[in-house]
Amino acid sequence: MTEATANIGVVGLAVMGSNLARNLASREGNTVAIFNRTFAKTEELTTDHPEAGFVSTSTYEEFAASLQKPRTAIIMVKAGGPTDAVINSLVEVFEPGDIIVDGGNALFTDTIRREKAVRETGINFVGAGISGGEEGALLGPSIMPGGSDASWVTLGPILKSIAAIAEGEPCVTHIGHDGAGHFVKMVHNGIEYADMQLIAEAYDLIRRGTGKTPAEIADVFAEWNAGELESYLIEITAEVLRQVDAATGQPLVDVILDQAGAKGTGAWTVQTALNLGVPVSGIAEAVFARSLSSHPEQRIISQVLPGVEEELTVEDTDAFIEDVRLALYASKIVAYSQGFDEIRAGAAEYNWQIDLGAVSKIWRGGCIIRAQFLNRIADAYTEAPELPVLLTAPYFVEALGRAQGAWRRIVSTAAGSGIPAPAFSSSLAYYDGLRADRLPAALIQGQRDFFGAHTYKRIDKEGTFHTLWSGDRTEIEAEDTH
Amino acid sequence: MTEATANIGVVGLAVMGSNLARNLASREGNTVAIFNRTFAKTEELTTDHPEAGFVSTSTYEEFAASLQKPRTAIIMVKAGGPTDAVINSLVEVFEPGDIIVDGGNALFTDTIRREKAVRETGINFVGAGISGGEEGALLGPSIMPGGSDASWVTLGPILKSIAAIAEGEPCVTHIGHDGAGHFVKMVHNGIEYADMQLIAEAYDLIRRGTGKTPAEIADVFAEWNAGELESYLIEITAEVLRQVDAATGQPLVDVILDQAGAKGTGAWTVQTALNLGVPVSGIAEAVFARSLSSHPEQRIISQVLPGVEEELTVEDTDAFIEDVRLALYASKIVAYSQGFDEIRAGAAEYNWQIDLGAVSKIWRGGCIIRAQFLNRIADAYTEAPELPVLLTAPYFVEALGRAQGAWRRIVSTAAGSGIPAPAFSSSLAYYDGLRADRLPAALIQGQRDFFGAHTYKRIDKEGTFHTLWSGDRTEIEAEDTH
Repeated sequence: MTEATANIGVVGLAVMGSNLARNLASREGNTVAIFNRTFAKTEELTTDHPEAGFVSTSTYEEFAASLQKPRTAIIMVKAGGPTDAVINSLVEVFEPGDIIVDGGNALFTDTIRREKAVRETGINFVGAGISGGEEGALLGPSIMPGGSDASWVTLGPILKSIAAIAEGEPCVTHIGHDGAGHFVKMVHNGIEYADMQLIAEAYDLIRRGTGKTPAEIADVFAEWNAGELESYLIEITAEVLRQVDAATGQPLVDVILDQAGAKGTGAWTVQTALNLGVPVSGIAEAVFARSLSSHPEQRIISQVLPGVEEELTVEDTDAFIEDVRLALYASKIVAYSQGFDEIRAGAAEYNWQIDLGAVSKIWRGGCIIRAQFLNRIADAYTEAPELPVLLTAPYFVEALGRAQGAWRRIVSTAAGSGIPAPAFSSSLAYYDGLRADRLPAALIQGQRDFFGAHTYKRIDKEGTFHTLWSGDRTEIEAEDTH
Repeated sequence: MTEATANIGVVGLAVMGSNLARNLASREGNTVAIFNRTFAKTEELTTDHPEAGFVSTSTYEEFAASLQKPRTAIIMVKAGGPTDAVINSLVEVFEPGDIIVDGGNALFTDTIRREKAVRETGINFVGAGISGGEEGALLGPSIMPGGSDASWVTLGPILKSIAAIAEGEPCVTHIGHDGAGHFVKMVHNGIEYADMQLIAEAYDLIRRGTGKTPAEIADVFAEWNAGELESYLIEITAEVLRQVDAATGQPLVDVILDQAGAKGTGAWTVQTALNLGVPVSGIAEAVFARSLSSHPEQRIISQVLPGVEEELTVEDTDAFIEDVRLALYASKIVAYSQGFDEIRAGAAEYNWQIDLGAVSKIWRGGCIIRAQFLNRIADAYTEAPELPVLLTAPYFVEALGRAQGAWRRIVSTAAGSGIPAPAFSSSLAYYDGLRADRLPAALIQGQRDFFGAHTYKRIDKEGTFHTLWSGDRTEIEAEDTH
């Protein structure tokens, strides 16, 4: 009979699962049981990494028997059907009090459903978002676990042992119950889409405005990475732009097909925000920019659609680049602010107690959007945990005030010179919308009342009103049912 | 026993249902049976409108017995549970070959599900989008029925009898099977959101740029309504802006609370587009602009967030207004183009044979977005039924070329002067994205390959590639699995 020697198990040994298992095994105190549908992969990983001391298992029964109680297993398989299949198999061999962790990119509503179903068996189910890609999984990811408080007691120390460390703190915290972890991971990815799109627009503007080569622009990003924009994405942008294609001698970025792929979490972020009524326009523009790029049959080269008569030529290159930097920074503040607003709204909707400052702190290491900047977000929520809009924190107000002149010039320049900057433009429009004393939404309410008797409210008294547009155009008090 | 004297029945006698029943009754050859959950309403409608000759019924059995075969009933109740309840009741008293029409605003995926379930009983189920609000229901709406070809044989003549007439043609066509009608109605509403937001931005720019009063701006819209912008929404905008509030003597638009409501179909349009991978950025910005406006706790008056130092002051008012008009027209072309692209993508996904030209024709009358402009869309699809992007039709290319200088000036001005114009800006960025020879999506693909080994394609050869970023940075051929 198999002896229960492992304190943690991993199911699913594709690259993310293998790396996570190796990460777990490398930490003091962990013994890792591994299982994969095809046993060959389990054997291969065990053989390739003798240093890991894996407990190799070939059946779910053996896997369960190899785990100390409460048994704790992390599933790293494809979201959807494969995840459900593994959960069902584990439920059969696990016992009440054991813990099943889904470390994949599940949609948070699936996690809520699964947690509810598994809970009925007495087994704990934890949906945990894991960010950092393959390298993060191996060396230390940022981890966003949901699930019950009880499961966190066992799981917390294990996850802390493998998480990235940022400024001395492990990049993991118990986000909230059931689907909270996957929800926060989803928004993380949405913010990542926006951040990448903003960087892409900055690059495009500098390239088209100044004629600098990708290698020269790599220097610009490397320089930016020494300042307030310091972040992993800025850092790797410099690396990518500096890369030369061996086959052609061209900059790699010029031989890569300009059709961006997507895995769905960005779209989920926007779809969920629409359900919650939270404007995440910067994230939406980023998702749409990728889908526009990936429809070659739709993209019409400039010969077909009329463009501007004169291409952009920048006179003062340094000043222009500094403008782009400030526009990027301001737009980035908007994107993160919209993302955090969505988390706040999601927490209210699903009854999660989410510490937004703690979320920003666990994103400082391991994950794709790790950035110095996240400390400022943590500060903002420490000072005002109920902050209704992140960008209204004093630090960001100051930063936006400092950046807005440049931001406006860049959006104007892009519009005038035919360079698409959907995320820059959208972020600025959002900022100006938030700032507006009065919005033309009043006219929209008037139109809606005209064609659909949808009624409106007034600024000067309580109640709901309707103008008899097809009648004598007097105003009546109306029931608020439309 | 009840005699089968009616050729059509209506279930649900709230204002839309009542008006539709009256409309049906007013047309030659129709006898209308009516039913409502509370009989008082049925009695009231019968009494109030003796001219209609309604067949008043108090039970589902009586309702069914009053209808000639194939029995045909239009349900006008709330989407969701109430609709399901009525369908279930009708299925019990109807027979194979009868026709149940859901005329509410159902989500098209619900319609697909219901059609499948009802079809098993041998009864026909038709989801029909009906646009035009209360007045349209009474005087002639635009109707978008899905469902089977068989049901269209009976239903077609009845719906043609009540639809709006545009240039001699009834505004109804058989859109396609199962959920096609509700899908097209959904996109109609999404376009309506964009159109209204664009009008609101145009109004706001003119107001803030020229200092004209709402009444003066009403004149501008009235004038626009005589030209290529001629449409119902432009017409009623003039009416709303001209309206004076009796209580205060102020323009009504200035006493209406500037928080725009929404009923969900705009959000559905964007959520569906995200599933289909179709960029509908203009519609998304319109939906988000409404949600931004309706969060009073988030809207920060200008004292908190730094704004521009100088407000916009336009020197040549007429030239500025003409620029706004052209920007509105160009942005509107983008919004409609995105909407039609979504319909095309939806048809491909759900195997509907949708005649896009016919759709644009039935929107020329009855519905909220009715406009002269729709004839141009019909022309475009007549000439090129497979047009991948509507705005590349010659007429629109010419119009966009004519408008783009003004469009760019207006977006630049809005950005520079702190006036939020999210839909104008987004539409222009989309246009410039479509036009671009190269998009910075190539950089995004490079980043994704760097942090997640997501691989990329090359412009110069087939295959899928990955650079060994953490290794020696050579390029390898990769499997396309990421």
